[in-house]
Order: sequence, then C-alpha cells, then structure tokens
Amino acid sequence: MDHTALPTVVYYVAASLDGFIATPEGGLDWLTRYDKDPEVAQDFPAFEQTIDSLVMGSKTYEFLLQHGTWPHPGKPCWVLTSRTLPALSPDILFTQATPRQILEEAAQRGCRRLWLVGGGAVAGTFQRDGLINEYRITYAPIILGAGIPLFSPSTPDEPLRTVSVKPFACGLTQIQLVRE
Amino acid sequence: MDHTALPTVVYYVAASLDGFIATPEGGLDWLTRYDKDPEVAQDFPAFEQTIDSLVMGSKTYEFLLQHGTWPHPGKPCWVLTSRTLPALSPDILFTQATPRQILEEAAQRGCRRLWLVGGGAVAGTFQRDGLINEYRITYAPIILGAGIPLFSPSTPDEPLRTVSVKPFACGLTQIQLVRE
Repeated sequence: MDHTALPTVVYYVAASLDGFIATPEGGLDWLTRYDKDPEVAQDFPAFEQTIDSLVMGSKTYEFLLQHGTWPHPGKPCWVLTSRTLPALSPDILFTQATPRQILEEAAQRGCRRLWLVGGGAVAGTFQRDGLINEYRITYAPIILGAGIPLFSPSTPDEPLRTVSVKPFACGLTQIQLVRE
Repeated sequence: MDHTALPTVVYYVAASLDGFIATPEGGLDWLTRYDKDPEVAQDFPAFEQTIDSLVMGSKTYEFLLQHGTWPHPGKPCWVLTSRTLPALSPDILFTQATPRQILEEAAQRGCRRLWLVGGGAVAGTFQRDGLINEYRITYAPIILGAGIPLFSPSTPDEPLRTVSVKPFACGLTQIQLVRE
C-alpha cells in the first residue's frame, strides 16, 4: 500500500458571470482584455509559483502549442489525450490514465500541488471523482450566454468553504474555495 | 411619443459557482441553508425596499403561490404566462407582453426600479433585449453541475462595470454590476 499523499489539486480558472470559460468557439477575447491590468498581470505568476505540476486537456495544450515555447519549464504536465501531439518540452506527459492514476503518478514524482488547468471536460472528470481540493475562480464582469462550461459535466457536490474573495480594481472578482 | 423613462431593471438572484439558479428539478436546498444567517437574512429586505415593482415567470410565481400570502403587497408584479393562474393579490398582472412593453407599462404606472425575479428564461428574454441595467448575483460556494441557468438562453454582451463585491461571512459572495 502506497501511503504517499496525493497532491493538492487546484482548479485556477477564469469564467464569465454565467459560468463559461470560453465562447462556443473557444474564444478568450472577453478575458484577455484584462491581461495588461497590473493587478491581473501579477496574479497569475504569484499563483504559478505555488504549483509544481499541471494537468490539462488536449485542446488547452494545443492552444499553448501555438505560442511555440513551453511556459512551465521544470514542472511535469500531464496532457489527457488519445491523439499523437508534438511534445513542446520533456516535461509533457501524454496520458489516457484516470484522474486518480495521474495523481498517484504525480505523488510518486514528489508533486505536492497540481494546477488543474482545464478545460471544462477535464475539470468535470476530476470533480466527479471528488479530486479537486481547491478552486480559484476569477469571474469577469461579462455575460457570454453560451460557451464552454466550467465543468462539463459534473456532479452536485457538498458546499465548499470560501477562503477569500479578492476584488480587482478592473472589475474581476476572484473567489478562492476549498473542499473540507 | 412617450418620454417617460423606463424603470431601472435589476436582476437580483443567487447562483451556484457554475451559474445555475436551481437544480434541474428546481430545487433550492443548496441555497436555503443560508437563509438563517443574520447577514444573509438582512440582505434581501434591504434590497426589497429599493424596488417598487417586479417581473417573474410563471414557474417562479407558482413557487410563491405555495406560500399562500403574497410577499410584495403594494408593488405591481408582472407574471409572464399564457396560462390561467390564480391571482394572489390585486397587484398581480398576468401578461404575454414583450419585455419592453412591460417596462413601458411600468413606466406609465410611475415605477422607477423593477426587480427581475427570474427564472432564467425570463432573465434571458430581458438580457437579449438589452434591458437589464443592474445585476446583483450572489454566488453560493457550491457546484451544482447541472440545473436551471442564470439565463436561458442569452446573448453575448458588452462588459459590465463591477460596482461592488460583498463577501458574506457564511461563504456567499455578492457581485453588483451595472451596464454602462
């Protein structure tokens, strides 16, 4: 029996007021307009320093592929896919494993805090298995009306505990919550 | 030409983190557990004092019918329905009018601030017509995974301006926004 504790899984994500993380076509213009706000620009690097590993879906990975350089060097990153995709870095680990299997593998590598990048389908898989420990949802002040949901699909869960609420001067609101 | 200004429309509503206002069956247990929190219990009456009229869908109205007494005496309340429903009060106005027609009628009655109660379908109709001026969305710290959305459906809109963010000690977070 392996007594290695699984890493803490953090779903750090931005959403519209109505709970979408992207437009139906995957568009993020409604969000990137805040990128240059100084308060927003420092939030992500501060969070990124707290995590030592990542997991994401293949579409999110393909989005990052467009940038050409891998933005998270030295941190193992599991990419859930059944397809053959180019590896941007030796840290990329393509997998078809279950969420728990990925976390066990991460634990064996000594990972303590894993960023669940998304998208909604991957987040839904981890949520359904009860494996998300912390949420940091940054709501943008916009209604998208339709799009990719925060979780797709997920299951009703017990209430979370709100740890902090952080209003940004530019209008974003970040809510941090943990599973008890 | 009628120069009477339309009333300010406020969508005051509670939602899960993933943007649902009720479970798929219309359930609100996830929300009513906060009713007795003193801070929550005083928020609604404080808001209710600021409005002089209401609009809601027939399902929301039927939910209120179960309580037997009308909770908003003296305030005209438009109920969007094609059905024949019992009127709990002379203030109830059953209608099949468009959102704009309802607001014009409200303006003629001297209404200045109207609470868009919901549900999501009615809110979507007003949102699509660009007629919601203010949002007060209170997020409960829970993921429902499925249910009745905040708007069903709606259209992408311009960013809103965040006016205030109010964290409640019990874990709710109320975001107040206005259309510019």
